[in-house]
Amino acid sequence: MEAENDLINLKRLKTLAEHSDVYRDSQRLAIIDMGSNSFRLIVVEYVPQLSFKVTDEVREAVRLSEGMAANDVMSAAAMDRAARVMRIYAAFCAASGINDIVAVGTSAIREARNRAYFLKRIVSESNIPVRVLEGEEEAYYAYLAAVNSTTLTDGFVLDLGGGSMEIIRVKNRRNANAISLPLGAVRVTERFLHSDPVTSKEVKKLQSHLRDVYQNIDWFQAEPGMMLVGEGGTLRLIARLIQKQKHYPLDHLHGYVMTLDEVDAVVDKLASLSVAERNKLAGMKHDRADISLAGAIVVAEAMRASGAKSMTICSQSMREGLFYERFLAGSGAPVFHNVRHAAVLNLAHLYRFQEQHAEHIARLTLSMFDQLPPETHDCGPVERELLWAASMLHDIGVSVDYHDHHKHSAYLILNGGLPGYTHREIALIALMARYHRKGKPTVDEFASLLKPGDDRRLLQLCALLRLAEQLDRSRDGVVRDLSLRVVGGHALMEINFRGDEQVALWALERHTDIFEQAFGLKLQVIPIPVETTADDALA
Amino acid sequence: MEAENDLINLKRLKTLAEHSDVYRDSQRLAIIDMGSNSFRLIVVEYVPQLSFKVTDEVREAVRLSEGMAANDVMSAAAMDRAARVMRIYAAFCAASGINDIVAVGTSAIREARNRAYFLKRIVSESNIPVRVLEGEEEAYYAYLAAVNSTTLTDGFVLDLGGGSMEIIRVKNRRNANAISLPLGAVRVTERFLHSDPVTSKEVKKLQSHLRDVYQNIDWFQAEPGMMLVGEGGTLRLIARLIQKQKHYPLDHLHGYVMTLDEVDAVVDKLASLSVAERNKLAGMKHDRADISLAGAIVVAEAMRASGAKSMTICSQSMREGLFYERFLAGSGAPVFHNVRHAAVLNLAHLYRFQEQHAEHIARLTLSMFDQLPPETHDCGPVERELLWAASMLHDIGVSVDYHDHHKHSAYLILNGGLPGYTHREIALIALMARYHRKGKPTVDEFASLLKPGDDRRLLQLCALLRLAEQLDRSRDGVVRDLSLRVVGGHALMEINFRGDEQVALWALERHTDIFEQAFGLKLQVIPIPVETTADDALA
Repeated sequence: MEAENDLINLKRLKTLAEHSDVYRDSQRLAIIDMGSNSFRLIVVEYVPQLSFKVTDEVREAVRLSEGMAANDVMSAAAMDRAARVMRIYAAFCAASGINDIVAVGTSAIREARNRAYFLKRIVSESNIPVRVLEGEEEAYYAYLAAVNSTTLTDGFVLDLGGGSMEIIRVKNRRNANAISLPLGAVRVTERFLHSDPVTSKEVKKLQSHLRDVYQNIDWFQAEPGMMLVGEGGTLRLIARLIQKQKHYPLDHLHGYVMTLDEVDAVVDKLASLSVAERNKLAGMKHDRADISLAGAIVVAEAMRASGAKSMTICSQSMREGLFYERFLAGSGAPVFHNVRHAAVLNLAHLYRFQEQHAEHIARLTLSMFDQLPPETHDCGPVERELLWAASMLHDIGVSVDYHDHHKHSAYLILNGGLPGYTHREIALIALMARYHRKGKPTVDEFASLLKPGDDRRLLQLCALLRLAEQLDRSRDGVVRDLSLRVVGGHALMEINFRGDEQVALWALERHTDIFEQAFGLKLQVIPIPVETTADDALA
Repeated sequence: MEAENDLINLKRLKTLAEHSDVYRDSQRLAIIDMGSNSFRLIVVEYVPQLSFKVTDEVREAVRLSEGMAANDVMSAAAMDRAARVMRIYAAFCAASGINDIVAVGTSAIREARNRAYFLKRIVSESNIPVRVLEGEEEAYYAYLAAVNSTTLTDGFVLDLGGGSMEIIRVKNRRNANAISLPLGAVRVTERFLHSDPVTSKEVKKLQSHLRDVYQNIDWFQAEPGMMLVGEGGTLRLIARLIQKQKHYPLDHLHGYVMTLDEVDAVVDKLASLSVAERNKLAGMKHDRADISLAGAIVVAEAMRASGAKSMTICSQSMREGLFYERFLAGSGAPVFHNVRHAAVLNLAHLYRFQEQHAEHIARLTLSMFDQLPPETHDCGPVERELLWAASMLHDIGVSVDYHDHHKHSAYLILNGGLPGYTHREIALIALMARYHRKGKPTVDEFASLLKPGDDRRLLQLCALLRLAEQLDRSRDGVVRDLSLRVVGGHALMEINFRGDEQVALWALERHTDIFEQAFGLKLQVIPIPVETTADDALA
């Protein structure tokens, strides 16, 4: 049955209006990362401490460090390219009315002997002042990006740029050690890989050099339970090549976990191809084809040296780190208290969720979950948290269209991603939203991301979400709370309501089948009116 | 290169604010169709003459006409079910603050001998007055739905309900003849198909009866070029069964064309199964499994009798017809001047398109299209219109998220549908939006909907759209117009600009490859500044 109360629409209009107000209070910040390989501009729209969204992204290959390996001087051609791009970025910002611009330079600029001349030229031509980051500052912002978008608690961040690579040791979510190494993909390519295709001698020489470098970092040793997080365009490219090869079902890099074996296979593949041939690989970026092999080797050897068997991709990096410093200013260290929690609330806010209904659904689903005896289901604390996330997000698709909003919610969750959640978890949350109204939950195209038994868990979680949704079909919190007891093959659900319960009961009666299928229990619903007390009257 | 100007965001905020204003002027109307099989409630939110959207839909099987074949009396049980649903619908509307409610009854109520008692009971229990439509009124509203959501100009509308079926002859978009026949799926099932599974004798008797009935309608003869449009839940079900069987790539019924052979195959299949077995078919609706066969036979024989080889599904029906009467009131006949045009603009408005940019892109793409010699491409007037539609809609995905908005635009176009466009055309428009920024256009999963050569046409259309998008990358109309000449193997494009042209030229230079690939012509761009004239200064 497709039965929905359109009170939702009233609320939606209200939320839309409120949302406009929020936007009016929002700020925009442009961050330009003048990297050794490419210059990237991101625009972030944000309400401090509340929600944020990257609303624009511009990227231009500049290859600023080209030729620098020889003499530590930026070439005239490279500086011309850089100046042109900065002029265009300035025109972009001017046209957009953005005057809050942070431009940062990294290793290529930092180490160039003609740095002062270059910075003067840039500011005179684009009117954008450039802050040149020291290596440890680069490392700090890379760390901020990782710790605010992954569940990294203990381990390492590895940020591979064109000129340098930063490695950061993270202990209990704090940055403990950091080093900036001259191992950027452009620089290493220029120094070590001259032939096309490369010779095995060149590769071996590079690998040997890397082993020497890594060996000297005494704190770069992964222990069990540690996480290795990788950032940077070349690293994302490696992950994308691996995903394409295996027809990965998500079009999503952040949170992707790649193994050392997979990176080694990429190294072997790229080493066997000329640059022209690499360009034909599915997922290859043309302006990185030449430096991709060096990047893959740098990463593979870093993993081997540290002893880490896998690396989690973080598609945020220094730029986002700079943003978090601003976004979370004034609250101690600019680090989210709980990344997963923040990710769910941010996505919910961006799509103007109906906070009251969502939180009521979360209360009802978790109440059912907690009252069900553990032996009746296959879920644990992680799945409980996923149920919370899906409860909060199940209706965000309404912002696209009320019709089929369950499908739109799933689409937005899959596309928005949820930093801090694994791809399995994102798929499960999306599937819960997908089936929160109707349909038989199936793991569909995401089966390869899931664990054995997840189809059964999905059914159980969907059953709870769907029942809660029926109980609040009138979206007015008429069902205050519930108690659930299992007696023999029956689940007795007492629902305590205040007001007109007929919509809830009508909606519920046609969805008991999914509960019975999920838990093997016959559901019996016992409606109990709640007396108004003095306390309630005050509320 | 991913380079975008985020001036778009400024405009978006502006549009969002304006949009809120539009919504504040919007009205909501609830329409309840008390059919013989099910009661459906739709809520439409609309700004008269401008845009509209079904924001809610509730459906409940009531089977009001159950048993009526015997004595023309609604049974006590059926009336109880009906009254309960109407009470719940009234509670829905009350909770949603909707007081504009139109409830209409059709054949079951119209023909029942206890009609007066029933109507009194409904209004006393739900406080909703019911308007009982005559057969010709039912036909009129079914006609309004078809003529406002398909390109039907000459042909027939066939609206299959539970109690009756209406056939309307449409001539030059006007309703010329209409008849209401007692051939609804519930009624025919009760009268003719008693066994489970049915016997071939029962089927033959029904078919013979239908032939007699249809033969007597002297105007029910399809001539070449005529279109047969089908409406109603059972008809949609038949189409869905056919789509599921062939793994149709679109999850979209409106505009789907099914052939007589396919309907005959559904009849054979359903006739061979018991009702319980039919319930296992992919796409079956449980509350229609029993009446699905009768419906399919009624439709198949209608097609055969009229001589129509195919039928186009219209997922709108009488309810939407009632809405159009309200929406288009005051402008002569409540019929869109141009359904396809209205569909594009409606979708664009719903997702708050940037009207100025979209229309500028449309001007640029059509200007290029019109100036290209016909021998350089494979497109005709239909594709020219698709190029216009894609130009108007290419950015609507920004309402979901700026990131990957090309993908979101395609998603919204595919999901929103575009009434009046064929599924091939919808797929092409969506694919143009999908590839308007980057990527190699491929027909992807929609190949089975397309015509030979459409991959090549898609490439050509995408090339024009992508060039236009670059020319207006700064979204300020800096490129006023252009002229395009083909000389030898070269296309010379003079672009007349006013203001700062550097963003346009920079953006354009990296997308000439798709033009060259699409048309086999080397693109040469000649920027020409436009002098400010007195006229412009006034503008």
